[in-house]
Amino acid sequence: MEQSELYAGKQRQSTIYEAVQMRIREGEWKQHDKLPSVRAMAERMQVHRLTVLKAYQQLADEGILYAKYKSGYFVGPLEDFETGVSSEQSWTYQAKPVYVNQSRLSDIHRHSVDYQMAEALIDPQLLPNAYMSNYVKEVFDLYPRVLSTYSSVMGDLELREAMAQFYLDKYGVSVDAAELMITTGSQQAIDLISRALVKPGDKVLIERPTYSPAIDAFLQHRIQLFAVEITPSGYDMAEIEAIMKQERPRLFYMNPTFQNPTGYTVPVHQRKQLIELAERYDCLLVEDDVYQDIYFGSPPPPPFFYYDTEGYVIYIRSFSKYVAPGLRISILAARPSVMSSIVPVKALSDNGTPLLNQKIFQHYFFSSRLQEHVVKLRTALDIRRAKMEQMLAGGWRFDSPNGGLNLWVQVPQSLSVEELLHRSLAQSMAFVPGSICDPLGGMKDRLRLSYSYMNESKLTEGIQRLVTLADELMNDKNGQVG
Amino acid sequence: MEQSELYAGKQRQSTIYEAVQMRIREGEWKQHDKLPSVRAMAERMQVHRLTVLKAYQQLADEGILYAKYKSGYFVGPLEDFETGVSSEQSWTYQAKPVYVNQSRLSDIHRHSVDYQMAEALIDPQLLPNAYMSNYVKEVFDLYPRVLSTYSSVMGDLELREAMAQFYLDKYGVSVDAAELMITTGSQQAIDLISRALVKPGDKVLIERPTYSPAIDAFLQHRIQLFAVEITPSGYDMAEIEAIMKQERPRLFYMNPTFQNPTGYTVPVHQRKQLIELAERYDCLLVEDDVYQDIYFGSPPPPPFFYYDTEGYVIYIRSFSKYVAPGLRISILAARPSVMSSIVPVKALSDNGTPLLNQKIFQHYFFSSRLQEHVVKLRTALDIRRAKMEQMLAGGWRFDSPNGGLNLWVQVPQSLSVEELLHRSLAQSMAFVPGSICDPLGGMKDRLRLSYSYMNESKLTEGIQRLVTLADELMNDKNGQVG
Repeated sequence: MEQSELYAGKQRQSTIYEAVQMRIREGEWKQHDKLPSVRAMAERMQVHRLTVLKAYQQLADEGILYAKYKSGYFVGPLEDFETGVSSEQSWTYQAKPVYVNQSRLSDIHRHSVDYQMAEALIDPQLLPNAYMSNYVKEVFDLYPRVLSTYSSVMGDLELREAMAQFYLDKYGVSVDAAELMITTGSQQAIDLISRALVKPGDKVLIERPTYSPAIDAFLQHRIQLFAVEITPSGYDMAEIEAIMKQERPRLFYMNPTFQNPTGYTVPVHQRKQLIELAERYDCLLVEDDVYQDIYFGSPPPPPFFYYDTEGYVIYIRSFSKYVAPGLRISILAARPSVMSSIVPVKALSDNGTPLLNQKIFQHYFFSSRLQEHVVKLRTALDIRRAKMEQMLAGGWRFDSPNGGLNLWVQVPQSLSVEELLHRSLAQSMAFVPGSICDPLGGMKDRLRLSYSYMNESKLTEGIQRLVTLADELMNDKNGQVG
Repeated sequence: MEQSELYAGKQRQSTIYEAVQMRIREGEWKQHDKLPSVRAMAERMQVHRLTVLKAYQQLADEGILYAKYKSGYFVGPLEDFETGVSSEQSWTYQAKPVYVNQSRLSDIHRHSVDYQMAEALIDPQLLPNAYMSNYVKEVFDLYPRVLSTYSSVMGDLELREAMAQFYLDKYGVSVDAAELMITTGSQQAIDLISRALVKPGDKVLIERPTYSPAIDAFLQHRIQLFAVEITPSGYDMAEIEAIMKQERPRLFYMNPTFQNPTGYTVPVHQRKQLIELAERYDCLLVEDDVYQDIYFGSPPPPPFFYYDTEGYVIYIRSFSKYVAPGLRISILAARPSVMSSIVPVKALSDNGTPLLNQKIFQHYFFSSRLQEHVVKLRTALDIRRAKMEQMLAGGWRFDSPNGGLNLWVQVPQSLSVEELLHRSLAQSMAFVPGSICDPLGGMKDRLRLSYSYMNESKLTEGIQRLVTLADELMNDKNGQVG
């Protein structure tokens, strides 16, 4: 009986929850409008006040409402998804109720296409496969029992010690093996950080646009996301400071070097300044560094990790993307206080990355052959980048990136990216629509084209088809209008 | 100003939260006691009523309080951890506030010891390492680009198709490749299931005792855990039905074949009956099947998966434990409606298990050599089991297992397992204390000894030392008393 009363209470609560949502969605209640008081709403809906309060609180937890102390509940600053323009400020907050995780990026990747411009992956033909195979055979001679042994949760000690030495030699950063964890790709590192370090209701800063699976990873915890724009000259530092000061975000997820998807790089002076802000406002900086070694001109500035003395930077470094992507090896560095929260989540997730993959990675990564390979790889990728840029004449706008694997493109105004994607997939072409890289769901006139996966002739063909298709779509539209 | 008021409100809320917890902990407020009303508490603590309500609700969310509709808040049925005996029923509910995950098992595994009885792992010397190395080399000849390629999120299609065929041939179960997912070990499968299928507040059934990382995996979501005892004759089916009927748990996590840690096997008639209950009460059965092939006498009954026609069983099968544990390959089978919830979480977690590991596993698993290996392995493990049992004379009690890697032991009454563990680790011996396998935190007179990792002479030595240490501890104690 009690059980069914509780159940009925829950039913009523969700009725109110939905009624409020509907009125906001339909525009009856607008941003910052005050809601009826709990008492008034309870009378109107003929339910107990506690039921109304719970529904309001659930909506507040989800960022749809906000509570003012002693004043009641108000409609939150919701984003206008249709125009992609924030209705208040560029970092207007947004929190989606996400229990069932979604991944639009992997939905797109599920399509097997002839013209692959959606995968920021390096063409297997550019990797020294035969050479790697030989290396693997050596690993088995060196570690005959590598397949019979588990790695420790944090990863193989030998590899972690080698990486600690590498960070010291390369950046002069002193890091202990106990501050390094081996993860199954950067994706896992982001997921572990989100699970270990944020709680429902926390505030998280993120770039706009950004790596879309990171949006998914943080939103799974029902946090509030604050987006800061990244441009060719970096961040708006005053905006970041304002948000840090006012909102006290728990962490800032950044991809500051040849950013995915834009290719932009945050300049040195902002790196130093942001470290100071992080310390002042107690905000962790999660630096996802994937393309550090994939530069076309001069090398990028050192990572944030290099400037960090107080332990505010969590550094995710992926090497395997250009060493042997199939290995899925990334390295996460964090100071002990932070690492101690991440280790149990890694144990829960998979008990440690497979040892075999770590051993192969280590032996290949520290070979002289790898350095030769990377030099050649940069040149090959730069040629593909130039080819893609050359083919995208006309109304397609972009900033030429100095590194990375992607071109971030603004399409002609009259072109619908969603429609282009739909039609492209039907013609066996894939790219990433800009909107899924935008934590605010806007940027509907952008797309990300990866130039790394196809060889030159395929790339030329692919872009030609894409541009032709776009022209057709725009002509159709103009035809309809005229 | 508003910000700081909100902050102060939060502070006051947590003060009340802590005050309530303290009174419960210290026994001032007992189980099912009614708390002061929100109004009374607000007056007493000189805070706003909303602040009290929020604190109460937070405590209710964490299972420390419960709300009765229109009556107020009551102290929840908390477990008496000291005695390990439930204060109400054997399956008394328990919900811990777990945000920061913990893993006591991996804490124990972090110790590198000479006498390893805590790891349910097969001695690398029992695995055909040289032969596996050759297989790996063949894989590289067959798939020269395996290191340059990502797996799909669900896993390599070739392997999934081969496994679908295997299930059909071996159990006559028809399963499509789209219903199979390759995971990085069973640990990841459990974590994915917990993340995809349970929400905070859900109810989950679990065996008592059970595989302790599964407890951690489910409790991370702030669910309510209901424990059902597993004995040499299986489950108490009436108890399971009562819980399913009354509580409507979302799923039942089971390890029904040579169970870890007990070695018990649920009989066929209960398998059939439980499938019916699952259908009737809409409860998913998560069958973790690790030791199916590690039997000493006759093979165990077919898995629950075999009896399932309506898609209620999620089947986690681990083969790599005895094929090549370092590969970390498990296979998760679920019907499409369930699988569709798990796929996005897998994408978020690591975007797919490394392809190399899948290819190596497949080529070795389907070799005739593997079958010969498994037959020998069973014999070798059975000898070690018999040796361990023989050494554990005197007051140590256990049921001899018919399969698996573990002995579940009840120690003499006067022995403290915690103290034994503490002293064992100091003497470079490790085992798993029973209490961490018990979702109710009891079973303090039990421990799990794995006989799979050490060779016979090491095992003999290890158990001898353990028994000697135990005798010393008991004599010390008796000495003190006498």
